Amino acid sequence: MSSSPQQTPLIVALIQMRMDDDPQRNLQAATERADEAAKRGATLICLPELFRSRYFCQAEDPLNFELAETIPGPSTDALQRVAQAHRVTILAPLFEKRSKGIYHNSVVVIGQTGQLIGVYRKMHIPDDPGFYEKFYFAPGDLGFKVFETAVGRVSPLICWDQWFPEAARIAALRDADILVYPTAIGWLPSDKTAEGPKQRDAWKTIQRAHAIANGVFVLSVNRVGFEQPYSAGPGIEFWGSSFVCDPFGEIINEASMEAEEILFATIDLNRIERTRRSWPFLRDRRIDDYQDLLRRYGDKTWN
Amino acid sequence: MSSSPQQTPLIVALIQMRMDDDPQRNLQAATERADEAAKRGATLICLPELFRSRYFCQAEDPLNFELAETIPGPSTDALQRVAQAHRVTILAPLFEKRSKGIYHNSVVVIGQTGQLIGVYRKMHIPDDPGFYEKFYFAPGDLGFKVFETAVGRVSPLICWDQWFPEAARIAALRDADILVYPTAIGWLPSDKTAEGPKQRDAWKTIQRAHAIANGVFVLSVNRVGFEQPYSAGPGIEFWGSSFVCDPFGEIINEASMEAEEILFATIDLNRIERTRRSWPFLRDRRIDDYQDLLRRYGDKTWN
Repeated sequence: MSSSPQQTPLIVALIQMRMDDDPQRNLQAATERADEAAKRGATLICLPELFRSRYFCQAEDPLNFELAETIPGPSTDALQRVAQAHRVTILAPLFEKRSKGIYHNSVVVIGQTGQLIGVYRKMHIPDDPGFYEKFYFAPGDLGFKVFETAVGRVSPLICWDQWFPEAARIAALRDADILVYPTAIGWLPSDKTAEGPKQRDAWKTIQRAHAIANGVFVLSVNRVGFEQPYSAGPGIEFWGSSFVCDPFGEIINEASMEAEEILFATIDLNRIERTRRSWPFLRDRRIDDYQDLLRRYGDKTWN
Repeated sequence: MSSSPQQTPLIVALIQMRMDDDPQRNLQAATERADEAAKRGATLICLPELFRSRYFCQAEDPLNFELAETIPGPSTDALQRVAQAHRVTILAPLFEKRSKGIYHNSVVVIGQTGQLIGVYRKMHIPDDPGFYEKFYFAPGDLGFKVFETAVGRVSPLICWDQWFPEAARIAALRDADILVYPTAIGWLPSDKTAEGPKQRDAWKTIQRAHAIANGVFVLSVNRVGFEQPYSAGPGIEFWGSSFVCDPFGEIINEASMEAEEILFATIDLNRIERTRRSWPFLRDRRIDDYQDLLRRYGDKTWN
């Protein structure tokens, strides 16, 4: 009776990593852990944002552009081998060198035969103290992307994107099953005591809300550990807490705030249809009256 | 240096009520509690959705249209007197009879001189077992509204609206300071054990996320108690839990799940500007690529 074929549950793995100074060692660690995750049964494996390096955006330093690489390039080469060897799907977030002077904060989706399925380029670029990303990254020009993979329809989004309900909604309307947010978020030393718990709680809350509003799975994978920038700066303590939540926003599994780990979760994509039948939000959207979402701001005189 | 005048904190009051069979007694209770809230210092007072009656939408029965009233009408008359007597702003959610056979689920905003400032008509209308609202209410045709009041710019939204990030975003873009969600949400007896905690948690989470995404205060006011429908039906246990949260989604005060109470909270609207300077989400929206929000759904072939 149903036109949706039943799917068997799948195991996802989020690689919560502490980043080394040396990009080569980070790639080595990432491939080893992806390899381990695959051996333990994961078929969708996600790495944190910009996993090849320390979070260099703590300062604006032109030397840091040397950290960028092309797609394809050495990172995709190494991870394509892992994907093909184990027949798994891998999401690899990279500092993409697109051309001379054009750089992006990107995610490459690698399919289970080792093929490059596609690239997402971060659409919402932050810029605030310690997170000077507008200096490094041109805003994504590919739009929000959903990729058909062997494990379902996957939409990669990146860190700051997680604060924008619009991104999650558009991915869901393009039939995403799983939103994945590779992330590099943490506390400035000056903020942690007063604001730390609130910030982390807000970060979890808004991503869980994307799952709820859209009836999709959300995977969020963060780095961990305190990092001094390559240049001067106070440093950032990345808060880990990578998590997986179901289409009603319930946390299925969650990593610690401090430790490196591979976070596993079993997810059943049939839950999406069941959840949306109970809470049919997508049926009732007032698309006739959402035009103002395309504006920066509305004048008070609108009322 | 700032163009935003500093505002003094204000006290808001949410009237969490148990509804009587008799609409007259509900109006009496509402006016008494609004009176009490004002005497205790509140200057913005909000009542729950459809506060004049039991939640009649548990069944589709044409007799229930007799519960509707005009705006202005007896409820606004009574509450305008309270507003004027105490110089307070009141949000009164009513079953609005607009014309012969045209009904809405509405909120009237009453200003501190007792004037009717305006009406919001529920835009997103639910319809699922026990909540047969599409039978009763024509969808709102006034759009999302923000009203200038003596206590700030207030956007009334109603219950099912709370699951739609679009509504909250549009209100914020129209410079709302405070989103208010009068609500009638609860557990069906068949659901409570297995799904109850998840449902209530999702309901809080998504509303807190609207505060976070938009940097606004959110007030949510629910009814409480078990109600048999006027017609046959299993009944609903309304879960109370009315709450106020700040522009970063932190709960300031929260009511119980079972008891009638007036929930007070002191809110400082200057927090909005401060929060948005730290987390400048509204700066970075990709309004050049949100067009698909105006669609019901996107074909897979878009990718």
